[in-house]
Amino acid sequence: MSTQNLVIGIDVGGQTTKLGVVDARGNIVCQSVISSLQKELAEYTDALTAAITDLVGQTGTESRIKGIGIGAPNGNYYKGTIEYAPNLKWAYDREGRPMIIYLADMIRDRTGIPVAVTNDANAAAVGEMTYGIAKGMKDFIMMTFGTGVGSGIVVNGNVVYGHDGFAGELGHTVVIRNGRQCNCGLKGCLETYTSAIGVARTAREFLSETDRESLLRALDPEKITSKDIYEAARKGDRLSLEIFEYTGKIMGEAFATFVAFSAPEAIVLFGGLTKAREFLTEHIERSMNDNLLKFWKGKIKLLYSTLKDSDAAILGASALAWEL
Amino acid sequence: MSTQNLVIGIDVGGQTTKLGVVDARGNIVCQSVISSLQKELAEYTDALTAAITDLVGQTGTESRIKGIGIGAPNGNYYKGTIEYAPNLKWAYDREGRPMIIYLADMIRDRTGIPVAVTNDANAAAVGEMTYGIAKGMKDFIMMTFGTGVGSGIVVNGNVVYGHDGFAGELGHTVVIRNGRQCNCGLKGCLETYTSAIGVARTAREFLSETDRESLLRALDPEKITSKDIYEAARKGDRLSLEIFEYTGKIMGEAFATFVAFSAPEAIVLFGGLTKAREFLTEHIERSMNDNLLKFWKGKIKLLYSTLKDSDAAILGASALAWEL
Repeated sequence: MSTQNLVIGIDVGGQTTKLGVVDARGNIVCQSVISSLQKELAEYTDALTAAITDLVGQTGTESRIKGIGIGAPNGNYYKGTIEYAPNLKWAYDREGRPMIIYLADMIRDRTGIPVAVTNDANAAAVGEMTYGIAKGMKDFIMMTFGTGVGSGIVVNGNVVYGHDGFAGELGHTVVIRNGRQCNCGLKGCLETYTSAIGVARTAREFLSETDRESLLRALDPEKITSKDIYEAARKGDRLSLEIFEYTGKIMGEAFATFVAFSAPEAIVLFGGLTKAREFLTEHIERSMNDNLLKFWKGKIKLLYSTLKDSDAAILGASALAWEL
Repeated sequence: MSTQNLVIGIDVGGQTTKLGVVDARGNIVCQSVISSLQKELAEYTDALTAAITDLVGQTGTESRIKGIGIGAPNGNYYKGTIEYAPNLKWAYDREGRPMIIYLADMIRDRTGIPVAVTNDANAAAVGEMTYGIAKGMKDFIMMTFGTGVGSGIVVNGNVVYGHDGFAGELGHTVVIRNGRQCNCGLKGCLETYTSAIGVARTAREFLSETDRESLLRALDPEKITSKDIYEAARKGDRLSLEIFEYTGKIMGEAFATFVAFSAPEAIVLFGGLTKAREFLTEHIERSMNDNLLKFWKGKIKLLYSTLKDSDAAILGASALAWEL
């Protein structure tokens, strides 16, 4: 019986870290989840190492783990590090200063398996290109709209990492000069308008600036989520529909700038907010095309990820590991 | 005596087309210039073919022309075409409709030499990487500030052409929403503020909106050029200095967006407007750094081309031809 090559994909999120063993056809053979809420780095890496060891044990002796791919906030591909990840407590020291976490080195030393790290949106792009809707595409931009806004840019079949490994921070391009304060320190970032949290901010603004009727008025404004707005929109709530129109317009304007950069075949959307695609697509497309040069108008595909939410991040991270 | 390999670089400008024979070390062995003002395509291609044939004749029998590289407005690398080039009369039919000019095919068929076409800013980027200040860099962005604003993006040592060959149109990213009308049809493009013509527009706005004193008041506002403003600034004219401050601020804001895309080692500036660098650099750098994420602040180099203006375009275009 021949040895089967497998890889491990790990998705480091703010709440949980998901792990999966993946075969060459993109099947998740087995998987597990650990918490990401540890306060100390050592606690987190101990838990992660234990979870990896456990998964490796489950795969049996006829298999060989070729590598581990990790997608993490602000993951740096060149250095194998996580840096400045505001949602991960263990990435900061006791005085609250950000640490540079040499995650690839740490996990490789503890497991004996080669490790690659990248940011979560880059991992998603690789996953989409390897197993998803971007299969066969050489030039596309992956945009992830969740709690934050991430991006992974693929040019000529390769993820763009840039000089320092941090390329593709399109969530932190300024779309409204002197606009909303962003966690990153800048003002008016795309993320402050088009993340799940940004959409909820829009709702609070729309509600406080007018007296218009809305199903959202029944809710505590401070607790409104993008899911609430989506559900109200499905019931035909006019204000909620306009919140998505506003969001889609800003996305489209930003996408037009991104197209001028790398002339992608498609922009691929992923993440929780894309559940509201029925209320977004038309506005994104109109606004993007309004802001594109003539030869691009109507030619850039707007696509939604076809990978299952829970699988995409693991598959994306795992795809990195095949190149190790 | 061994055969010497040479290439020809051609820079198609709105007024003139410059040709040069270049050796492997980047020396321009001989050169010539023809007009670009012909009204009919056949007239232009006849003149261009004659100029090439003449140059080939000058190189003698001990040399071999390996290829021809052409840098042209809206040049498309994949198709070898010029498309939608508003400054070239012969690129439009008698009803004023843009034609697709198969320039690479035409010149190859007439000369028997392989031909590559790209846009002028991409050619400049290749020139800078092969012979200039970006030698050895794998990730940088070339920005050309002349009559218009062009860009060439290099990622991992290769020019980004994108899915359709038109990537790198950063002059037509919107920097001020609903801002100045651009020739391209959009509003608020970077080019409308930071090209030589854009800077003159800024001067007219500043002059008409206030009564402030300025050396520029001695000139016919409709005829003010960026050169006039530069000369006034050198004499300490406050308003002219503020025009460059305004220009540099907008450049820096735009550059910050570009950095978030490809995390370049440097942004390399080229073109007529960079003569005013003494009045621009400080403002570009401050505004760029104010708009960058923490890990990029102070780390992105702002460089000016070191190639002679008249040589850079020919060298850049010629560098393309080595790969044919």
